[in-house]
Amino acid sequence: MTELKSHPKLKLFSLNSNRHLAEEISKKVGVPLSQATVEKFSDDEIKISVDESIRGDEVYIIQSVSDPVNSNLMELLIMVDAVRRASAKSINVVIPYYGYSRADRKARSREPITAKLVASFLEMDGVDRVVTLDLHADQIQGFFNIPVDHLRADTLLANYFTKEHHDSELVVVSPDHTGVSRARKYAELLKAPISIIDNRSPEDATTVPESVIGNVRGKRAIIVDDMIDTAFKLTIAAETLKKAGATDVYAIATHAVFSGDAQKRLQESQIEKVIVTDSINIAKQDQFEKLEVVSVGDLFGEAITLIHNQKSVGKLFGR
Amino acid sequence: MTELKSHPKLKLFSLNSNRHLAEEISKKVGVPLSQATVEKFSDDEIKISVDESIRGDEVYIIQSVSDPVNSNLMELLIMVDAVRRASAKSINVVIPYYGYSRADRKARSREPITAKLVASFLEMDGVDRVVTLDLHADQIQGFFNIPVDHLRADTLLANYFTKEHHDSELVVVSPDHTGVSRARKYAELLKAPISIIDNRSPEDATTVPESVIGNVRGKRAIIVDDMIDTAFKLTIAAETLKKAGATDVYAIATHAVFSGDAQKRLQESQIEKVIVTDSINIAKQDQFEKLEVVSVGDLFGEAITLIHNQKSVGKLFGR
Amino acid sequence: MTELKSHPKLKLFSLNSNRHLAEEISKKVGVPLSQATVEKFSDDEIKISVDESIRGDEVYIIQSVSDPVNSNLMELLIMVDAVRRASAKSINVVIPYYGYSRADRKARSREPITAKLVASFLEMDGVDRVVTLDLHADQIQGFFNIPVDHLRADTLLANYFTKEHHDSELVVVSPDHTGVSRARKYAELLKAPISIIDNRSPEDATTVPESVIGNVRGKRAIIVDDMIDTAFKLTIAAETLKKAGATDVYAIATHAVFSGDAQKRLQESQIEKVIVTDSINIAKQDQFEKLEVVSVGDLFGEAITLIHNQKSVGKLFGR
Amino acid sequence: MTELKSHPKLKLFSLNSNRHLAEEISKKVGVPLSQATVEKFSDDEIKISVDESIRGDEVYIIQSVSDPVNSNLMELLIMVDAVRRASAKSINVVIPYYGYSRADRKARSREPITAKLVASFLEMDGVDRVVTLDLHADQIQGFFNIPVDHLRADTLLANYFTKEHHDSELVVVSPDHTGVSRARKYAELLKAPISIIDNRSPEDATTVPESVIGNVRGKRAIIVDDMIDTAFKLTIAAETLKKAGATDVYAIATHAVFSGDAQKRLQESQIEKVIVTDSINIAKQDQFEKLEVVSVGDLFGEAITLIHNQKSVGKLFGR
Amino acid sequence: MTELKSHPKLKLFSLNSNRHLAEEISKKVGVPLSQATVEKFSDDEIKISVDESIRGDEVYIIQSVSDPVNSNLMELLIMVDAVRRASAKSINVVIPYYGYSRADRKARSREPITAKLVASFLEMDGVDRVVTLDLHADQIQGFFNIPVDHLRADTLLANYFTKEHHDSELVVVSPDHTGVSRARKYAELLKAPISIIDNRSPEDATTVPESVIGNVRGKRAIIVDDMIDTAFKLTIAAETLKKAGATDVYAIATHAVFSGDAQKRLQESQIEKVIVTDSINIAKQDQFEKLEVVSVGDLFGEAITLIHNQKSVGKLFGR
Amino acid sequence: MTELKSHPKLKLFSLNSNRHLAEEISKKVGVPLSQATVEKFSDDEIKISVDESIRGDEVYIIQSVSDPVNSNLMELLIMVDAVRRASAKSINVVIPYYGYSRADRKARSREPITAKLVASFLEMDGVDRVVTLDLHADQIQGFFNIPVDHLRADTLLANYFTKEHHDSELVVVSPDHTGVSRARKYAELLKAPISIIDNRSPEDATTVPESVIGNVRGKRAIIVDDMIDTAFKLTIAAETLKKAGATDVYAIATHAVFSGDAQKRLQESQIEKVIVTDSINIAKQDQFEKLEVVSVGDLFGEAITLIHNQKSVGKLFGR
Repeated sequence: MTELKSHPKLKLFSLNSNRHLAEEISKKVGVPLSQATVEKFSDDEIKISVDESIRGDEVYIIQSVSDPVNSNLMELLIMVDAVRRASAKSINVVIPYYGYSRADRKARSREPITAKLVASFLEMDGVDRVVTLDLHADQIQGFFNIPVDHLRADTLLANYFTKEHHDSELVVVSPDHTGVSRARKYAELLKAPISIIDNRSPEDATTVPESVIGNVRGKRAIIVDDMIDTAFKLTIAAETLKKAGATDVYAIATHAVFSGDAQKRLQESQIEKVIVTDSINIAKQDQFEKLEVVSVGDLFGEAITLIHNQKSVGKLFGR
Repeated sequence: MTELKSHPKLKLFSLNSNRHLAEEISKKVGVPLSQATVEKFSDDEIKISVDESIRGDEVYIIQSVSDPVNSNLMELLIMVDAVRRASAKSINVVIPYYGYSRADRKARSREPITAKLVASFLEMDGVDRVVTLDLHADQIQGFFNIPVDHLRADTLLANYFTKEHHDSELVVVSPDHTGVSRARKYAELLKAPISIIDNRSPEDATTVPESVIGNVRGKRAIIVDDMIDTAFKLTIAAETLKKAGATDVYAIATHAVFSGDAQKRLQESQIEKVIVTDSINIAKQDQFEKLEVVSVGDLFGEAITLIHNQKSVGKLFGR
Repeated sequence: MTELKSHPKLKLFSLNSNRHLAEEISKKVGVPLSQATVEKFSDDEIKISVDESIRGDEVYIIQSVSDPVNSNLMELLIMVDAVRRASAKSINVVIPYYGYSRADRKARSREPITAKLVASFLEMDGVDRVVTLDLHADQIQGFFNIPVDHLRADTLLANYFTKEHHDSELVVVSPDHTGVSRARKYAELLKAPISIIDNRSPEDATTVPESVIGNVRGKRAIIVDDMIDTAFKLTIAAETLKKAGATDVYAIATHAVFSGDAQKRLQESQIEKVIVTDSINIAKQDQFEKLEVVSVGDLFGEAITLIHNQKSVGKLFGR
Repeated sequence: MTELKSHPKLKLFSLNSNRHLAEEISKKVGVPLSQATVEKFSDDEIKISVDESIRGDEVYIIQSVSDPVNSNLMELLIMVDAVRRASAKSINVVIPYYGYSRADRKARSREPITAKLVASFLEMDGVDRVVTLDLHADQIQGFFNIPVDHLRADTLLANYFTKEHHDSELVVVSPDHTGVSRARKYAELLKAPISIIDNRSPEDATTVPESVIGNVRGKRAIIVDDMIDTAFKLTIAAETLKKAGATDVYAIATHAVFSGDAQKRLQESQIEKVIVTDSINIAKQDQFEKLEVVSVGDLFGEAITLIHNQKSVGKLFGR
Repeated sequence: MTELKSHPKLKLFSLNSNRHLAEEISKKVGVPLSQATVEKFSDDEIKISVDESIRGDEVYIIQSVSDPVNSNLMELLIMVDAVRRASAKSINVVIPYYGYSRADRKARSREPITAKLVASFLEMDGVDRVVTLDLHADQIQGFFNIPVDHLRADTLLANYFTKEHHDSELVVVSPDHTGVSRARKYAELLKAPISIIDNRSPEDATTVPESVIGNVRGKRAIIVDDMIDTAFKLTIAAETLKKAGATDVYAIATHAVFSGDAQKRLQESQIEKVIVTDSINIAKQDQFEKLEVVSVGDLFGEAITLIHNQKSVGKLFGR
Repeated sequence: MTELKSHPKLKLFSLNSNRHLAEEISKKVGVPLSQATVEKFSDDEIKISVDESIRGDEVYIIQSVSDPVNSNLMELLIMVDAVRRASAKSINVVIPYYGYSRADRKARSREPITAKLVASFLEMDGVDRVVTLDLHADQIQGFFNIPVDHLRADTLLANYFTKEHHDSELVVVSPDHTGVSRARKYAELLKAPISIIDNRSPEDATTVPESVIGNVRGKRAIIVDDMIDTAFKLTIAAETLKKAGATDVYAIATHAVFSGDAQKRLQESQIEKVIVTDSINIAKQDQFEKLEVVSVGDLFGEAITLIHNQKSVGKLFGR
């Protein structure tokens, strides 16, 4: 008999949602991306084959559940099935953007809780660990029974802001009632007070909010959120802040979902700069002048290295 | 062969945490409480036997996971085991206060998510449905795969306040960053603006908050929260509000956890009245002058009747 | 207490893949389609709410997993989650076309078995029964532990052919090595012999097959298959049959997947008529002169009625 | 990339039930106890955090499910959740006393089987192995699907008795009908005959038994049992044995549950010495003159070492 | 739409192990046995088809897991699969003799717990309820999470004995150390004292026991056990009892496993009569003069009727 | 503390179905068979104990589910339970012949899918991997969620045929409609055309088929199938082929089930040679002159070595 492989190897796979970030991660980890073939038929059916042996290896699959979310999610779930049947030692999924995260509770009768459904699919599929970033609600970790390494981009983004756009008079603004804790956290990192946009119809993002709670006059206002979707909420908040006397307005968000005309709306808004991460890939043609992108490649790369080497990733949790 | 029972019967059981509320519920439903013997040995071991046949019946077990939470939880879990083995048609657990609900996420590395663990135990034990009230986070519904009927006390409590303590100049106050949505909801019910206490060290409830965001001067301030535990947060908020010019301060909360010297602290505080529900039983000796208790017996009774009759309970969700 | 609903109601829901067929089914069953709102965000995220109470009802959800398969599958899975959380008595999914059915085995190392993955998702999601039609392999039934009512379109299609296109000299042709049993079954229904196309590179559907096994000279050849995808296999088979002396060629298939230029290819081929069912919706603009569509609405409608009334559906199995 | 930890580390944690025994075990294993913070709120809610990284480690958690059993059980279950989420390689629970073990069957209709419920909770929670001692019934091993290493204290206790209290004329006595096999085992170790107390109402431990089956006259009688709870059964057995002519009476039991006035009752009884293990911690003030405690620290320590080194523990099974 | 079947029907199926008892049960219940075809191929493969519709019915499958136990067990498990896939409303398995029940714990290292394995197979297969008789250990109920109705034959057998073989001077004898509780129960029913055979090598059933504990001189001794297998233990016990002065010896056991030469050995033994039930079918040629068989057909028939009518079966538990 | 075993050991166990093959495998792997005691009681109950420590080892259990299939299957399932409870690191079952594989779909209403049931039992029992050979349908792999290494004997058998029985004019024959793909694969290996036996009543294997599709005149016909059971289908196919002008007929099949008088029927048939593997043990007295057996010992041995060394086994898949 020949000898056992001395240690399980770390194998990194990228699916289709965000190959650019995957390459950044690969560089940081120091391990090249492994080969898998992902084909798509004209009816959207996905066919995957893993093109190298992964028996006994520790596999990391990088995929954001971003637009098109259903295809990207199915790609991930099918890849996990292939990897499990191919006898990997462990299956780690790296999900920089966890789509469907807003459907995390039953807001009205007879609604699904899709964020939990996705978690259940991943667990049932044999995933051993999830590595993700800035979940819409911290409680989504509890939708899983497997370990979730929940990274935070706030320190990274706050440092970037401090370096690039610092001003002596800052105020951090939560654009709605649910984001105040996040604003508080940024306020500590930026040593600034907080304000809240009091939008009385949070369901209808197109309504102009009636008021700002807290004082923004004469300050540079930084609206912080976990994701930017249609950007209605953000651009209206910016208008309100300007009316309330803010000198200028910046926006920081982890996930650039950018649906509909979000890019156009942001470029034409009263916001100076929109700072996001590359957790979701932004195609060249979708970038715009006011946009600044901070990579989370090193953050994920460092996390994967620590996990594979069985070191604590606590310090990357940002708190 | 004799004939099948024509319809499954509704059977209500009360365990030990809150027999008073169970009796209120029983009155509203119009079905007497069924008999079960719950004994406790001196080492805290619980022994249960169900004292009447429940074959083919739809069983509702009423139990708050309140002080002592571990015993009350185990009582519930053991009762469910007995009821399942006794061939009930369905097992519905009515949990007016869902303990361990604050441990709903991993705030730091290497913490448990106990609220999910409790949910998993209930599901594994064969529970078919959970009926509960004002969960600490809505996402806890997603910890379950079974139906959760999540009742809301806000309309009930706001109506009570309007009737008993109305004032023309009200402001609803969130005592921390995470409760702003709840404050917003009460503000709509009470047609009032909102304010937020900006406590920079939310982990340390004994710190005096540095500021109020929003205007409370000359108004009756109503602090709203889901539960009152040690009451530190509440009493300090009250002080801050008075300093900020509030004319008087009221507190509304669904769950009266009241640990440590909470009762004494509240009675001696600057708060006029503390309005809670009976989701947790408050012993005679633990009541105090400023306390007003609104029963949720009718709310739960109506929910159980609708559920048993397979009618929608949507209107009891309060939103 | 008011009275229990006397019997669980049958509720039919249609999702987006095939509303036309759902309406046919609804007519046959004699029960109108219930209301659910299915919205899709610009990043393809699906939001569903069930718009009427279904507590205690027997719910049937009609959805083909056809193009776009990932969205349609997720729509189905999310709807099931909503229905389960809304306390339906039973959840029956009616899947006229079960997508991903070709990925039913590991043809090579390190491939997924997606047809099983889809089955596992449906089971985990709480589905009680699957009603489907002409699965790519009968063994897919075994991917489920729940009851599967597997309907057959062969009698329906053979009867249609006999009525519309009968000829005294018929031969039924299997277009590949795996479809011979299906051809045998049609041959019995049409009282004809069989032939087989011997394509030596079944993986590469664009290759011209080298030979026909069996005698087709002077006969009307009917190629039978479970689905038509790109139509390469079919049009090449038709050419081969003509070369081998067939007088004319017809094609029968249950599922009209029609990917790529299938419609154009078929219209321009040597095939006289292409007979399919409406298990997959064919948009007006995708229909073509040679196409004839036989509805399976009555077949599914009858099956649902029998199932709801707890009668045997054996006779609809076609064998 | 840095290098993998060469071998998974053995980490020992003690919870609150029996820190003294945990220290004995730690000494024998040669590995210090790891740090975890276990806090308890005034309503008995438990909050745990593991204070050092355990990624990839083999974790052993030592906890007896003794008084207060519900709190101690929940402590164990919550700790397992924390350890699982913190990415331990394996989770081994060491339960010197498995509480709720007497509720191992349905003695009457509509009773729970709590011993199984506890086993199911542990399995569902992700435990990989249970190490325990002298279960009330051997069949409890079958309540688990995971490996159970079931240690025996009989050799240890018999050796202790032989060394300290030997007499030439011994008789081993089973205090009831269910313990005869245990008595037989001790009889072999002590090379003595057996007798049985024939208590006709085993449910009512306060009744004086009517007779002894077998001859005890002129002998030193050793009553052996798995646990001592209220001590009623034991003290009455002792009286009966004296009446039947035993010269003196000793008692041996593995688990010192000691509920109610057990200590007082034993001290004032006709029993000379009560010999137990430290599987349950006995506080200083609860010890009494006649009590002799034999530590199982070395037994557990040796078992853990063998398990961690993947050696057979068969010899520690005592049979 | 036609109308729903008004009530689920009770359907009784017998498999091959014990058709005689199934017919007795069928008579008592008043429902004829339904038809299923069970074929066996020459390599022992079993093929089953259910020959009538059972959609929505409550199905009871009667099968003892007796010789040949593996075939009979697989017959039962395969039948359950067929019944589940055929959309039965509930699946109740009636197992008069639960084979593999002695393998209910790990007596030594590295042994299976087959009784649990069988329970897990039944649960996983979708069984809703088990109805069985005199399990080897009561704890086997806990191997299941589904309801187990555990019937007792002791009252039936004791009444039979009293009527046919009563004597004024009786003694009930446990043939080993583990059966003393059973002997105690019979002793109460027969108002007699007990004795125990003290066999020091319980593993080796062929050894002559060295002694009887308790007084049997001048009495009619009734050895009681749950099953008779090789009958070594029983015949040796009879010898010992005769030597110890018993006037005559009877044997009572629920399950007549009768392996090897048990029948011959019993017929030639010092036992007067061997009284068993028909839980296991005894072929004509295997009966012998000293054998008396009491039917449990009525006991099971009554239980099934009570269960189907959702009445308590507590009184049939015999305690 | 002593040191950990440096690497998990490979342990091979053989059960009773096919010890000869197990020894061949053991020789190839270079690891002796480990000891386990498998006893069978006269009622067919199986008792197993593993006779050496396997803690932390990678265990391979070799067992064909061949005649008697129920006993052999239970032996395997019970052995897996023992091995799991004995703390093996991984459990790999090697099933050269997977019995019950023909029951892989519901051919008619109300039939079981036993091949799936067996898969579910193995998974539930804790098996980590299945290694098997030429499943009746490839889809059976999808009945498992764990990795299945599905070996192929076709290259081995085709090479053997080429070496021993080559002829310049060959034709490969599928004996029924479902085996055409297998025939195609052999045809490629042997560089020959294919033919199909067109048996119109595939359910009734005793009917003489009416025709051969394709040309066999003047050629050596090789009938290929996955298994030979009663051999009716094969011997009738041989007759038909001779009538159709084949010069001589050979048969190749992987699994020699040989039920009923298969051996006699084959020896007396028009077939020259019957070539099978030793996936099922063929007792000396069951061998016959025309039979040639090719061992799959090396194939399995090589697979196990590759798996244990975490190398790809893709090349052994034969495709």
